[in-house]
Amino acid sequence: MTAPRTPKIPYGGDYNPEQWPEAVRDDDHRLFTRAGIDTLTVGVFTWSLTQPAPDTYDFTVLDRVLDRAAAEGRQVCLATGTAALPPWLAKRHPDVNRTDFEGRRHRYGQRHNFCPSSPAYREHATAMASRLAERYAHHPALLAWHINNEYGGACYCERCAEAFREWLRERHGTLDALNDAWWTTFWSHRYTDWDQIEPPNALTEHWRGPDHTAFQGITLDYFRFTTDALLGCFLAEKEVIRAHDPDTPVTTNFMGTFRPLDYHRWAPHLDFASWDSYPPLDAPPTRPALAHDLMRGLKDGAPFWLMEQTPSTTACRDVNPLRRPGELRLATLQAVAHGADAALYFQMRASRGACEKYHGAVIGHAGRDDTRVFREVAELGRELEILGDRTLGARTPARTALLFDWDSWWALEISDGPSRLVKYPDVVHAYYRAAREAGADLDVIPQTADLTPYDVVLAPALHMVKGDLAIRLEAVAARGGTVLTTFLSGRVDEHDRAFLTDVPGPLAPLMGVRVDEWDARPPEFTQTIPELGTEARLVFEIVQPRGAAPVATYGTDFYAGTPAVTRNPYGDGEGWYVATALDQPGVDEVVRRILTRHDLLGPYADHPAVETATRVAPDGTRLLFLLNHAPEPAHLTAHATATDLLTGKRVDQGEPLVLDPLGVAILQ
Amino acid sequence: MTAPRTPKIPYGGDYNPEQWPEAVRDDDHRLFTRAGIDTLTVGVFTWSLTQPAPDTYDFTVLDRVLDRAAAEGRQVCLATGTAALPPWLAKRHPDVNRTDFEGRRHRYGQRHNFCPSSPAYREHATAMASRLAERYAHHPALLAWHINNEYGGACYCERCAEAFREWLRERHGTLDALNDAWWTTFWSHRYTDWDQIEPPNALTEHWRGPDHTAFQGITLDYFRFTTDALLGCFLAEKEVIRAHDPDTPVTTNFMGTFRPLDYHRWAPHLDFASWDSYPPLDAPPTRPALAHDLMRGLKDGAPFWLMEQTPSTTACRDVNPLRRPGELRLATLQAVAHGADAALYFQMRASRGACEKYHGAVIGHAGRDDTRVFREVAELGRELEILGDRTLGARTPARTALLFDWDSWWALEISDGPSRLVKYPDVVHAYYRAAREAGADLDVIPQTADLTPYDVVLAPALHMVKGDLAIRLEAVAARGGTVLTTFLSGRVDEHDRAFLTDVPGPLAPLMGVRVDEWDARPPEFTQTIPELGTEARLVFEIVQPRGAAPVATYGTDFYAGTPAVTRNPYGDGEGWYVATALDQPGVDEVVRRILTRHDLLGPYADHPAVETATRVAPDGTRLLFLLNHAPEPAHLTAHATATDLLTGKRVDQGEPLVLDPLGVAILQ
Amino acid sequence: MTAPRTPKIPYGGDYNPEQWPEAVRDDDHRLFTRAGIDTLTVGVFTWSLTQPAPDTYDFTVLDRVLDRAAAEGRQVCLATGTAALPPWLAKRHPDVNRTDFEGRRHRYGQRHNFCPSSPAYREHATAMASRLAERYAHHPALLAWHINNEYGGACYCERCAEAFREWLRERHGTLDALNDAWWTTFWSHRYTDWDQIEPPNALTEHWRGPDHTAFQGITLDYFRFTTDALLGCFLAEKEVIRAHDPDTPVTTNFMGTFRPLDYHRWAPHLDFASWDSYPPLDAPPTRPALAHDLMRGLKDGAPFWLMEQTPSTTACRDVNPLRRPGELRLATLQAVAHGADAALYFQMRASRGACEKYHGAVIGHAGRDDTRVFREVAELGRELEILGDRTLGARTPARTALLFDWDSWWALEISDGPSRLVKYPDVVHAYYRAAREAGADLDVIPQTADLTPYDVVLAPALHMVKGDLAIRLEAVAARGGTVLTTFLSGRVDEHDRAFLTDVPGPLAPLMGVRVDEWDARPPEFTQTIPELGTEARLVFEIVQPRGAAPVATYGTDFYAGTPAVTRNPYGDGEGWYVATALDQPGVDEVVRRILTRHDLLGPYADHPAVETATRVAPDGTRLLFLLNHAPEPAHLTAHATATDLLTGKRVDQGEPLVLDPLGVAILQ
Repeated sequence: MTAPRTPKIPYGGDYNPEQWPEAVRDDDHRLFTRAGIDTLTVGVFTWSLTQPAPDTYDFTVLDRVLDRAAAEGRQVCLATGTAALPPWLAKRHPDVNRTDFEGRRHRYGQRHNFCPSSPAYREHATAMASRLAERYAHHPALLAWHINNEYGGACYCERCAEAFREWLRERHGTLDALNDAWWTTFWSHRYTDWDQIEPPNALTEHWRGPDHTAFQGITLDYFRFTTDALLGCFLAEKEVIRAHDPDTPVTTNFMGTFRPLDYHRWAPHLDFASWDSYPPLDAPPTRPALAHDLMRGLKDGAPFWLMEQTPSTTACRDVNPLRRPGELRLATLQAVAHGADAALYFQMRASRGACEKYHGAVIGHAGRDDTRVFREVAELGRELEILGDRTLGARTPARTALLFDWDSWWALEISDGPSRLVKYPDVVHAYYRAAREAGADLDVIPQTADLTPYDVVLAPALHMVKGDLAIRLEAVAARGGTVLTTFLSGRVDEHDRAFLTDVPGPLAPLMGVRVDEWDARPPEFTQTIPELGTEARLVFEIVQPRGAAPVATYGTDFYAGTPAVTRNPYGDGEGWYVATALDQPGVDEVVRRILTRHDLLGPYADHPAVETATRVAPDGTRLLFLLNHAPEPAHLTAHATATDLLTGKRVDQGEPLVLDPLGVAILQ
Repeated sequence: MTAPRTPKIPYGGDYNPEQWPEAVRDDDHRLFTRAGIDTLTVGVFTWSLTQPAPDTYDFTVLDRVLDRAAAEGRQVCLATGTAALPPWLAKRHPDVNRTDFEGRRHRYGQRHNFCPSSPAYREHATAMASRLAERYAHHPALLAWHINNEYGGACYCERCAEAFREWLRERHGTLDALNDAWWTTFWSHRYTDWDQIEPPNALTEHWRGPDHTAFQGITLDYFRFTTDALLGCFLAEKEVIRAHDPDTPVTTNFMGTFRPLDYHRWAPHLDFASWDSYPPLDAPPTRPALAHDLMRGLKDGAPFWLMEQTPSTTACRDVNPLRRPGELRLATLQAVAHGADAALYFQMRASRGACEKYHGAVIGHAGRDDTRVFREVAELGRELEILGDRTLGARTPARTALLFDWDSWWALEISDGPSRLVKYPDVVHAYYRAAREAGADLDVIPQTADLTPYDVVLAPALHMVKGDLAIRLEAVAARGGTVLTTFLSGRVDEHDRAFLTDVPGPLAPLMGVRVDEWDARPPEFTQTIPELGTEARLVFEIVQPRGAAPVATYGTDFYAGTPAVTRNPYGDGEGWYVATALDQPGVDEVVRRILTRHDLLGPYADHPAVETATRVAPDGTRLLFLLNHAPEPAHLTAHATATDLLTGKRVDQGEPLVLDPLGVAILQ
Repeated sequence: MTAPRTPKIPYGGDYNPEQWPEAVRDDDHRLFTRAGIDTLTVGVFTWSLTQPAPDTYDFTVLDRVLDRAAAEGRQVCLATGTAALPPWLAKRHPDVNRTDFEGRRHRYGQRHNFCPSSPAYREHATAMASRLAERYAHHPALLAWHINNEYGGACYCERCAEAFREWLRERHGTLDALNDAWWTTFWSHRYTDWDQIEPPNALTEHWRGPDHTAFQGITLDYFRFTTDALLGCFLAEKEVIRAHDPDTPVTTNFMGTFRPLDYHRWAPHLDFASWDSYPPLDAPPTRPALAHDLMRGLKDGAPFWLMEQTPSTTACRDVNPLRRPGELRLATLQAVAHGADAALYFQMRASRGACEKYHGAVIGHAGRDDTRVFREVAELGRELEILGDRTLGARTPARTALLFDWDSWWALEISDGPSRLVKYPDVVHAYYRAAREAGADLDVIPQTADLTPYDVVLAPALHMVKGDLAIRLEAVAARGGTVLTTFLSGRVDEHDRAFLTDVPGPLAPLMGVRVDEWDARPPEFTQTIPELGTEARLVFEIVQPRGAAPVATYGTDFYAGTPAVTRNPYGDGEGWYVATALDQPGVDEVVRRILTRHDLLGPYADHPAVETATRVAPDGTRLLFLLNHAPEPAHLTAHATATDLLTGKRVDQGEPLVLDPLGVAILQ
């Protein structure tokens, strides 16, 4: 099953009519029409209304919004609303509340507040999902099911401890296997009974917070357990929905590069992926782009939904900047360029109270339609109508892949040594950015993905190497492709045990290097890399070539002259090893050399602010998105003759092609 | 009832003779006489001595100090001593100990350690107050009652939870009203039973500490509840004191701009205000001045007591600088200039042990009278004798008012969005400082105060607007006055719900502006304001004039040229709106323009280091305090013919008037 | 009893064969031989193997390693392994787990995880020690007993509270004495029953962590109690070992300048001292040197063991730099120069999993002997063989002493006021460094030590002065010696009560100064000291000479011209007082003037990077270690004719003497 079929990009977002009297709701619908809004996400936080008491259900509020949506020709993405408990449930069943990392049982408050192992929670949540499905499965407005909301967080209660032990039994089979996996002979931890195992937290294996653990293996398994425990909640709801509604696509909204959950384990169970994009507004545009591509990679390249973004500002940050004119349009079309088949906002109307009352909304507290934000939303609505179905169902024809691996992320960042300062998403983003700014289309894929479509595979900071991955990477090179990996890759197996071979472990044959030692230094220290005219920092592995040729070397210290970057011929291809955290220009140079070898530089690679993205529609039409992220016009020379879907204008190959500041063209 | 009547400014402070043998106490009294000390605050921490066991009372220690005071002609401010529990009480009744924000029941330790909802605490504290009143009501040394000490802090125990629910019932009446006030439909919080409500803390609605809450309305009500709960403790003690002593004035020592308690709710219940002044020693002199004026404003302009200040250093800070020669005198006379009718120190003799042993004292560990500090204290004592009753009972004839509102403080600082970096006291201080350095006398008043005496009303950062305030502000302008407010004003109602109108809500008609959107940026970002030759930062509201005229505009960004400061004609007066956090020179310029319009600039407004303060004695005598905060002499030209009460010297109008470095003149 | 007698410096370190299969262990022993490794520390973390269940003991793993060691001519330092609980014990007896500073009972995890007051822990730990002693007392490989591991941390459980009360009874005798010692009349803390006393932690007397306490006396006594409680655990194990093995020396590994435990209280109970050296790798070489000398001072100058150091990197830090070529050799020979009679590593083979898998090891994960680190270890092994017994049992003939006092450390750093920024080890190190870089041999001694051997006694930051110390310091000066102390010395008695005399209390007569007041300022503020051409910061005491002559004065502020450094003639000697935190060059200048007076400057005092250390072997042979800490060669002129024990080369007095970069010579 895939995302819902729609005649155009669904446009709209989270809507909470239950907070407002009817007159306000009337205004809302009038404004929706004015802004081209056709899709509403509802029911995300209505549990306390739809079930005000253990045995009382009241769906008036949802009936009303779905019926009205249907009447007005709008579609509904219907949430099960199980991400925020009603107060009575927390009071009646205290075990539905989470126990936090400090071992403290919480009481009622906030949201995302349920223990995934609580039978009372599971029972009540599935009952709600079941009733909703029964009631609305065949409602004409129903477009998709939205289970829960932004799953995340962990619980450390006794029930979770018990569930963790069960999970471990299933994963490891025997205590001997578990002891071996976790290397428990270290620090006298050899378990003789499953009951001795405690969830890793501030009262057991951790100090200085969630990243400092005495046993990486235990903590890693708790991350995996938590992923599975919350997935279990999702699956339970999905199952009861399917009992009543075999057809409507089901999703839950993800959060991009979100560390707590391994979305690759969830992906097979969603009918389509969706996610909420709240990039730091000073981040380069490749940050949300990386997340878009990661989300697209969840379902093997299938389009996803942009389930939430703010039309103007966030509220939850210490400082909440405003999206400037044009930024919303640019970000939205960037999402479409990367595979979004829906463009939804949080939120349609600003809440009057509580912690999101200053979160941006299409309709503000004064209910106006003459604000700048409303105008931009409405103009974008018109453009999406013009675009129609031209982008729906398209695919990205990438020949470059970037491996993204939650296990490596977790393992790297909970590691004691060599450096706490290396952040997995930062390393990954540096390589992603280099490739994207060079104009390459990328797939961001799990380490289990089929690698045969790709000429180039980038695998930065691949700390953990599992299964037959090394063999599959070798196969890429053997048939002429290029594989790149970096410092701190190939270090540990699936249990976070060091490989008992030379670093980079199973990747060593492909890379043709051997690493015995590594230096780590504070962030203000830099090492020069003369051949790249750049600098490096944080970690400096000392490389002994074992077949590889140096591409660049360290400029100073006792390892001056030894390789910082190497290239190893392997079959018809190459293995590249980057032994240190190069600054972005160094990463750019390395990646462009590789892309050049495979003729994968984009047509506008010399315009760093102009992003290009190719999409192939189901009918084979090839679309090229041009996105100008600069506040100045971009003066290009058209690389091909094409028509801009947004303006209908035609440009001829070799003619000037001007993009407005923050402007976009979709060339066909 | 007002402050005690005395023939001169009471001079002395906290004294703990119970810590010392008789020989030391003899030395103390000899030194007191030498330093002109006539007033002692005693009994603040004697509970473990006066009630060493549940049924044993022993007032020997207090008898001794009061009798000796009387014998030597000194007066006593007698504390009830209920701010620090005796150990046996904490052991016997564990519920007297507080449960902290993290939900942890404390055990015996520190001070300010009692749960305000504990019946055992209430019972024992009032019993103590009652016995003290019975015993000392008619003691000749008794000058004032000092209940408890520096009330503050909050408790989150089950009893407080229950008391909170009762308080809510009284405030909101029905659950429907409460649900509406807190906007609980957001995030599925609709309560169906009072028992479902939990105190907002780290285990319920909060994350990242006390300022981050999911529901501002809940947290705000807990601040108010805590204010009332501690006030209840005060009132219970006051009531039993009054039963035995109908005449002696009662106070408790406040702490100036102290966020946890809304002192405006307390003020009616004190016979006179008193407070402890411990400004950061690198703060500008307008910081303690603001606090003095706030305290004076508590009782409608009546004089207050300076209950504590250090003669030399604090101990509780990471770095405790020393008051330099002359600074103590200057600070003390500044307090008098702002309405202090007493000048008391913490402490008379330095403690030998525990956390305040390095806190400055009139008499140090060596018991000397030949230290610099003792000499300065004694010299000041002589000056206060010279001053006699000339300043007692005076009033400040201010025509400028500054609104200070705890609700706005709380609401602003617990708000999610737009910026966590805006601090209410900083914004308020900037405007206070501008007016004071321009020579205006100010009243710092609650938002419920009568505004008719004022020509200028400054209401910076008035986030919450309640009751008929907007109408009363309009009346100020209508009759020719000027009202100023700023960014982030007029945003929420008394329940922290956004107004459903254009920003600044009820203040919009007076200000003549409409604000749809606002930008927030990190502190290192500055925006130029060309017309003021200054910069602004943190928050930038985008103003659409609706009648107002621009006074100054933004210099850059997409909103360049739109107004940053506006002036709106309203009736015979004006409404000024400042849409961003101007740097101090910008605030100075705006405020001076307004004061100039009302001819409220002081005679020495061009001498920024010279503070002036006017006081009118009960007999109508007008005093002008001149305080030179610079370490260099101030060369002025006398604006009027007058006599300096401290030196007896006369200066003629137009003649040179020189103030010593850190020097003071009190001109009559 | 002293350290074990060995024919050469024991070389090797921590070894965990229980983590590995036999083939790996075979490799290990082959490599040990290749590297000259003759000593293995084993059993540190084997408890879960040697006692897999309450009634099951299994010593196979230890039998194997000891037998093989004996067979191969290696020696074993045998640990009792009681520093890391087996899981079953934590599960079966939850009270063996610690309750932390926040009052939270922990559950199984980490290491150093036992409550010192738990009867179950005590019983099981001593049973283990007893069985080990019984089994291995006469094993031919046994060289020394290593009880537990890196004792440290504190517990705050109910049992510890009870034990604390017992400890207090013994220390203070009566509640009156305790109330007086803790000055409990302050803040109403007068205890009337021992049961009212709570351990000082986050739920009682502390706020903002372990250094902020309302009652210094209580916190200080808890530090002392914890020292004694853990010492009790050590003594219990030692006692049962001695029952089976009266001869083999017993130690436990200390951690140098480790704040939690007063090692001076432990020292008499160890047969020899040993410690683990993990200096921050960017620290000057005098940091580990200070720790070496402190450890040597524990047993009155007797040699100690270097029980652990890393051959390459640590893992536990945020950033773990690599020891560069030559640094390991230099650090090891520096240890020998300061009194180490053994040179051991953590660890022989890198762990495969958990938090130390990236900690440096002699043998890495790949098991290679051709790594740089292995080569350096093996080369050093050869040098130690050459050195043989020449350095064993030697003593340092110091005429300069530095007082190091845990009580002063604790009292200074938990003090409220005058400055939280003064760190005891930093002040002590500044004076140590000055003396060492001037070439003086130093003993670092407890304040109870015999002072008669010394010409110079440095007592910086001696906050607490106990017993007859002042008299003994006066005696040093009286006979012609020099005593130096600094700001914040002589402030409190053994209970942290201020002396009721002029500062610096009992040291005032010797120093000839009186201090009434002191300023404290933030770290960025500096005060000039013109006579020393240097600056000072943090604390500025204002000195009134009472017999002393100024050596240097403050350059600015109201105390400009008053003394910052004074010298007081006393008997035939002098008392020097430094009233502020001089920058290092100022400390250097002061210390060199004092050393010069006593002719104690070293022969190479002008070469700041060249460290010298004198050792006198048991046969009277005098050895001079020359250690070049610079990465450049040091060009010296030999001050005497001598032979280098490492190279066998002879140098003649007056001839050039060149030390390689990081080079060492041991001249005889």
